[in-house]
Amino acid sequence: MSRKWLIKNGAFAVLDANKPVIHGYMLIEGDKITYVGEERPEGVEGAETFDGKGLLFLPGLINTHGHAAMSLLRGYGDDLALQVWLQEKMWPMEAKFTSEDVYWGTALSALEMLKGGTTTFLDMYDHMDQVGKVVEESGMRAVLTRGVIGLCPPEVQQQKLDEAVAFARDWNGKADGRITTMISPHSPYTCPPDYIEKLVQAAHDLNLPLHTHMSETRAEVQQNVDDYGVRPVQHLLNLGVFSRPTLLAHAVHLTDEEIEVLAAHKVTVSHNPGSNLKLASGIARVPELLKAGVVVSLGTDGPASNNNLDMFEEIRLAALIHKGVSGDPTAVPAREALLMGTDYGAKSLFLDNTGRLAAGMKADFIAVNTEQAHFLPRTDYVSHAVYSAGPKDVEHVWVDGKQVVRNGECLTLDEERVRFEAQSAFEGLLSR
Amino acid sequence: MSRKWLIKNGAFAVLDANKPVIHGYMLIEGDKITYVGEERPEGVEGAETFDGKGLLFLPGLINTHGHAAMSLLRGYGDDLALQVWLQEKMWPMEAKFTSEDVYWGTALSALEMLKGGTTTFLDMYDHMDQVGKVVEESGMRAVLTRGVIGLCPPEVQQQKLDEAVAFARDWNGKADGRITTMISPHSPYTCPPDYIEKLVQAAHDLNLPLHTHMSETRAEVQQNVDDYGVRPVQHLLNLGVFSRPTLLAHAVHLTDEEIEVLAAHKVTVSHNPGSNLKLASGIARVPELLKAGVVVSLGTDGPASNNNLDMFEEIRLAALIHKGVSGDPTAVPAREALLMGTDYGAKSLFLDNTGRLAAGMKADFIAVNTEQAHFLPRTDYVSHAVYSAGPKDVEHVWVDGKQVVRNGECLTLDEERVRFEAQSAFEGLLSR
Repeated sequence: MSRKWLIKNGAFAVLDANKPVIHGYMLIEGDKITYVGEERPEGVEGAETFDGKGLLFLPGLINTHGHAAMSLLRGYGDDLALQVWLQEKMWPMEAKFTSEDVYWGTALSALEMLKGGTTTFLDMYDHMDQVGKVVEESGMRAVLTRGVIGLCPPEVQQQKLDEAVAFARDWNGKADGRITTMISPHSPYTCPPDYIEKLVQAAHDLNLPLHTHMSETRAEVQQNVDDYGVRPVQHLLNLGVFSRPTLLAHAVHLTDEEIEVLAAHKVTVSHNPGSNLKLASGIARVPELLKAGVVVSLGTDGPASNNNLDMFEEIRLAALIHKGVSGDPTAVPAREALLMGTDYGAKSLFLDNTGRLAAGMKADFIAVNTEQAHFLPRTDYVSHAVYSAGPKDVEHVWVDGKQVVRNGECLTLDEERVRFEAQSAFEGLLSR
Repeated sequence: MSRKWLIKNGAFAVLDANKPVIHGYMLIEGDKITYVGEERPEGVEGAETFDGKGLLFLPGLINTHGHAAMSLLRGYGDDLALQVWLQEKMWPMEAKFTSEDVYWGTALSALEMLKGGTTTFLDMYDHMDQVGKVVEESGMRAVLTRGVIGLCPPEVQQQKLDEAVAFARDWNGKADGRITTMISPHSPYTCPPDYIEKLVQAAHDLNLPLHTHMSETRAEVQQNVDDYGVRPVQHLLNLGVFSRPTLLAHAVHLTDEEIEVLAAHKVTVSHNPGSNLKLASGIARVPELLKAGVVVSLGTDGPASNNNLDMFEEIRLAALIHKGVSGDPTAVPAREALLMGTDYGAKSLFLDNTGRLAAGMKADFIAVNTEQAHFLPRTDYVSHAVYSAGPKDVEHVWVDGKQVVRNGECLTLDEERVRFEAQSAFEGLLSR
């Protein structure tokens, strides 16, 4: 029989347009939310109760694009021109990453994400079985995908494709269903067209979505035009990518016509404002994408280009920068930004069971301490969550009905060991 | 005899270009830092010691523009067009503020600032004796100024001027010298020219700097041109404002010529990135200002237009947004952003005794806990402080040599009482 417990006295961010926050009760049975409402539900006489006084309950935050293991390179190169950063700093170090490095780097990131209220993350990297292992152990929910670069001889291409397919097939549904998978050509500029077509076919065969970087920088858009005579959206459309459910990372540089194509094909977008600013990639056209009906969610990108995994910051940046750049103070209002970090996150990952506090959803949620100066006065908790809160306001985190953070302490990962091993892994990379 | 104590095993952000962080010792005698260096100083045999292991010591953060009492209106109106926000939300409520409201609103802000590592703040508001009282009690350092709006009959203008002068004269040097004062015409668009001239004369008479809002929005620049035939910088120059040391808040919309005038007159600027984004005012030309030699510091603005008082966020925004907008990933590097939040803050407030960890400076500093996932690996503490840290990473805060925050708890203000009274004050405003 699954455990049944009732939260009382809580404020719950259901994020409905008319009443975004309700004060009352939430019932959890096993891995699911079965009730959220102002009235005490019926038939809960025997249930355990949890006092939610002073806590704001939010859906777990959903980070829809990243490379968790790159936490090992946090602060290793900053404030550099993009090509210098990649060629002199990131790539030489990443080439040395062992599967053990990926394990500890990912664990370091999982720790930061969980403690900061992120319950689901997408990860595109290499040595993905190590990432899967961290997801199993940490209790998080994740969408995992081996990112493949096709600038290599055909036999290496084939080997990577086989690896990506095997990982996607073997790990889909693992960790009690908390892991799902995708197929990921790294980007149009790092994968030849015929290779992308093979990856699209693999996604069809496995019935999985596709994920790729696209139009992060102006230069790569221009290169696409130079190489293939079309901009990246048309290029991917021509290669059949949008015949599968597709999540694009970045999508900074888009024309009106490209936005229409994305909307028409129900392509989803992971907006990465912190990374796009830091790497000087530009400002994505988020208000226009949302207006066109595109599902836009939020991602941190890798911790070497951010440099943290704080989804509250991405939510706040999404709410702030599009106002400042457009000159419209009503652009991306607080509720919309919070939806981008939660509900739209789930939708953009093609998950229909998480991202909201509602009956039937998986019990993935967090509790934020509102008894603090920056949550006062008690005017508007959605505004406070978006414009004022931070990752360390998170007191408790539940994923799939199980508590994974209690009073700010991670219950699933050994924090001290993870920190020690991650630092050692970095020192190992430096010395090799 | 003043207390003498030695911090050992610490990492100290001295922010020198060649070696921004040193590992070693800092000696404090009374209210001053008397040594920072890698070697243990001589003649400290009898001194108390403090183990700085795992802590990063930074100069206290300096918030150079705000209206602290507006914390009472945090979240009361968001995502609105500027004039709707001001006319329907802010002004009707502010008109009801009593001196007691200002006291509790300011105390709420002081609590948030201190716990988040801000040791010095500038405040421009009304009922300034209440703000002074909070500064005395909290132990913070502050630059206080009664902001005056001159759109009123001559006798009211005179009364406000007298008030501003009396406050500036009586409170300068109070709280053991932690309080200094300025004279503040609210802005060129809310003060007639002859009134600004009177305020300039008062600043001359009292030998004090001037502070004013300027060129926050395009509309106010246009209004200045329409009303006076010149842009705001020329207007203020004509009125003699820059004959005094002057700090401008915002300065978002500037021409190349205006930047030259500010540099030539050593006018300083408080950049408020969070507020400018949220109110959709625009993006200040910070890289150009810094290049021209203008001292640019950082401010949160009032908590109703931010909506927090997190200086780590302003520092990070300063480092991020100018990269994204300019397309130059080397714009406003991490060390420069941290200087803007510390040393340049002091300089822009015309304080020569705070803002750096160096012998001779006031002992205004903070200790950040680096034994956390987002501070790993130990690559670059300046990068981590700017791109990864947050206000709740602050463990300890000292101002004027006295500890005011210990293990995240404020020692000077009664947090529970301040939170209760601030919420009550807001409810009182709603009911009047």
